[in-house]
Amino acid sequence: MTSYNYTLLCDYYELTMANGYFMSGKGDEISYFDVFFRKIPDGGGYAIAAGLEQVIEYISNLHFSEEDLAFLREKKTFSEDFLDYLAHFRFTGDIWAVPEGTPIFPGEPILTVRARAVEAQFIETFLLLAINHQSLIATKASRIVRAADGRPVAEFGSRRAQGSDGAILGARAAYIGGCSATACTLSDRIHHIPAIGTMAHSWVQMFDTEYEAFRTYCELYPHNATLLVDTYDVLHSGVPNAIRAFREVLLPQGIRTCGIRLDSGDLTYLTKKARKMLDEAGLYECRIVVSNSLDEYIIRDLLHQGAKIDSFGVGERLITAKSDPVFGGVYKLVAKEDEEGNVIPKIKISENAGKITTPHFKRVFRIFDRASNEPIADMMCVWDEPPIDESMPLEIFDPDNTWKRKRVTDYYLRQLLVPIFENGTCVYQSPTIDEIRAYCQNEVAHLWEEVKRFENPHKYYVDLSHRLYDEKMRLLDEKGNRIENTRV
Amino acid sequence: MTSYNYTLLCDYYELTMANGYFMSGKGDEISYFDVFFRKIPDGGGYAIAAGLEQVIEYISNLHFSEEDLAFLREKKTFSEDFLDYLAHFRFTGDIWAVPEGTPIFPGEPILTVRARAVEAQFIETFLLLAINHQSLIATKASRIVRAADGRPVAEFGSRRAQGSDGAILGARAAYIGGCSATACTLSDRIHHIPAIGTMAHSWVQMFDTEYEAFRTYCELYPHNATLLVDTYDVLHSGVPNAIRAFREVLLPQGIRTCGIRLDSGDLTYLTKKARKMLDEAGLYECRIVVSNSLDEYIIRDLLHQGAKIDSFGVGERLITAKSDPVFGGVYKLVAKEDEEGNVIPKIKISENAGKITTPHFKRVFRIFDRASNEPIADMMCVWDEPPIDESMPLEIFDPDNTWKRKRVTDYYLRQLLVPIFENGTCVYQSPTIDEIRAYCQNEVAHLWEEVKRFENPHKYYVDLSHRLYDEKMRLLDEKGNRIENTRV
Repeated sequence: MTSYNYTLLCDYYELTMANGYFMSGKGDEISYFDVFFRKIPDGGGYAIAAGLEQVIEYISNLHFSEEDLAFLREKKTFSEDFLDYLAHFRFTGDIWAVPEGTPIFPGEPILTVRARAVEAQFIETFLLLAINHQSLIATKASRIVRAADGRPVAEFGSRRAQGSDGAILGARAAYIGGCSATACTLSDRIHHIPAIGTMAHSWVQMFDTEYEAFRTYCELYPHNATLLVDTYDVLHSGVPNAIRAFREVLLPQGIRTCGIRLDSGDLTYLTKKARKMLDEAGLYECRIVVSNSLDEYIIRDLLHQGAKIDSFGVGERLITAKSDPVFGGVYKLVAKEDEEGNVIPKIKISENAGKITTPHFKRVFRIFDRASNEPIADMMCVWDEPPIDESMPLEIFDPDNTWKRKRVTDYYLRQLLVPIFENGTCVYQSPTIDEIRAYCQNEVAHLWEEVKRFENPHKYYVDLSHRLYDEKMRLLDEKGNRIENTRV
Repeated sequence: MTSYNYTLLCDYYELTMANGYFMSGKGDEISYFDVFFRKIPDGGGYAIAAGLEQVIEYISNLHFSEEDLAFLREKKTFSEDFLDYLAHFRFTGDIWAVPEGTPIFPGEPILTVRARAVEAQFIETFLLLAINHQSLIATKASRIVRAADGRPVAEFGSRRAQGSDGAILGARAAYIGGCSATACTLSDRIHHIPAIGTMAHSWVQMFDTEYEAFRTYCELYPHNATLLVDTYDVLHSGVPNAIRAFREVLLPQGIRTCGIRLDSGDLTYLTKKARKMLDEAGLYECRIVVSNSLDEYIIRDLLHQGAKIDSFGVGERLITAKSDPVFGGVYKLVAKEDEEGNVIPKIKISENAGKITTPHFKRVFRIFDRASNEPIADMMCVWDEPPIDESMPLEIFDPDNTWKRKRVTDYYLRQLLVPIFENGTCVYQSPTIDEIRAYCQNEVAHLWEEVKRFENPHKYYVDLSHRLYDEKMRLLDEKGNRIENTRV
């Protein structure tokens, strides 16, 4: 039994800054932080939001134990007043977020926090960790599942995951992104992700002969017999022994559904040959499962070459998002309230243009085409802009190339950020994992095909309202007027 | 508070196979499994073993709770006898492993399990997960620390880690590999990895001016003031404001140690300019810390270009081992005992030559040069081979090219695998984390420089004793005699 209070799963500087805000009288100043990301992994056209449920758990349970406080006291860095304050620390602010399973795009807030400075600062690390990790895996899963073109993809990667939660929550995120199952039993128990499995090579080795191993397995699990046929020799030993076991154990019971799994070798060649052998034996309903370092590119290739595959087991390249294993969500101050409660936008400027933030407390609208339900673009507005009249045409423009304008008609809007916490109380009812997965599937289905290309996808636009654009430019002028002098 | 019993952190097939062994009367057969890996990440010349402490915790706590059993019963897949057995399940076998911090090489066992088939099979997933994850990060950290050439490297990656344990245990593994500190507070609390931190951009934005933000921080933390100077403009705002704050707050107190951090922009250019400005202000002891998607290649490049850097903060590319984020440890049956207790070697053959295993219950010796203490090669022997007389020359040979032979003299041997569990009881006293880190540092220091190259390192040999080689060939002949017919 391992039990952690995750409150201290924070960067140490969250604590020194929190103590600093507290000691300098800034702790109660209301501040606004956005979580957003800058780049879609793998050069893809969309990402999938995930991890919100773990954020909710974390925020709901946030508190410092006696042991946590004793540990911090030993650092001789924090004031006693601050430690007293931490003893009663709870999150009392507001959080809005994009529901899990939603396609998301660079530059738009996927979560916004409004809270006292100490509280808002403190939760940075865990929020990013939870959202970055699961959004990474859900996004990768969505790509892999699309490559499989309707065939089920099971997540088999626990043994190569980066830590226990990498396995448990990675399986959850993979399911959100479209996988049909996981190998991770604990993820089934905790998160209701269906756990499945076949057999390992050790099962085959444990018996005197491969046939005996297969026969025993079929006797034990006649309704769920998927035999691993590559321990010794796929075509000369594995498949013939599997056919014999199916015929001798399953067919007499009238069971025709069964399977073989290949985990090595030339999968296209071997599955074609194996399919032919199975069909010649009358085992038309025997399914062929393959695994072995698969990802969306290899799966697409296998299918393109005519491999005879019914389903995929995908491990390390999914559970670590191997080809691009970092989801770069960041947490940036975008506004503060002054003493009268006015929201004052804040910007962060950087020598790297891509690291400049979009200031202000914002709303994000997704603009859908009324006829096709396809999303056209997202638009960020300042929080208090008047409502958009959906019966009137809407002009949107590209904030990087402001001459690129588009007039949208016959559209409807959906607010992407929904209330999660109000005054520290959770006001959001998380959907079930199956609801999240179905929602994701539907949202991805409605994205433009051009946005879903693996290579060089069409860029989905995230635009700014006129007012938000003007506010950003004003702050850039104000704070950034010397940037050009430092260009090297 | 999140608490898990990690017993169910297993692939579902471990349970169906365990039930199968149990039901087919094979559950009590003594079997031997090796953990080994096939490829060093990043094309490097060595890896670092880590994760054993978590394996020990897991094995020590292994048990099925009432809830676990109820969950399994609902699957309607497992026999009641098996579920009864699981209710009292404990690990009762033996485990040997390489101590954490040891340089390890492909093909050699880094952990060996001897146990009843049910027990040995069941623990596969967690053992691999723990060892793969931490060995991956320790190996990456060792590379990055070597690139930094004596300058401290702090692990700052929690927010981009793949789940909570990715952060907490990733920090532990990074420390084993040579990092000096972490940002992860919980890793300090649990694993005693020193947590440190500077400030985020939000600290600077939270104040009306950058100078006020810096001055306040220096007043609060005069002995630990590292100021982030790139929120607006490094050379025209950040560094001048930092110098002013140091001069006005620290110098009057006689404090000369302080620091600045850069997190963006051209780090070589900016650190050279900043160093000059600091030196001109008499702040010779002000340290320059840099961060921003660093890894061993960028660090080497920065230093090669003459960047003025005193220490590094490394985040996402370390905590996910971004350039090669999978450590491919596997768990393979290598032997079984027959009814008389004779150890019968087992082999797994594969169409992929690299997936063929080295059979048998083995010992692994590291052969050291007596004069330099440099390791010369590792050699695997069958468990019951007579002891090697270190006063006699030792002939070793390359198992892939058996004509490559070497006669070693003036050497001594060290057994790599040490006893961890005996009959289910832990017999190993884990060293402290600082002892593990120091041991690792010393072991890596004694590796040949040629093995430590980032690109095209010299291959360190892992050889087989004559007897082990002969046994492997015999099994290959026996089981694999039809392999060549299936070549495509």
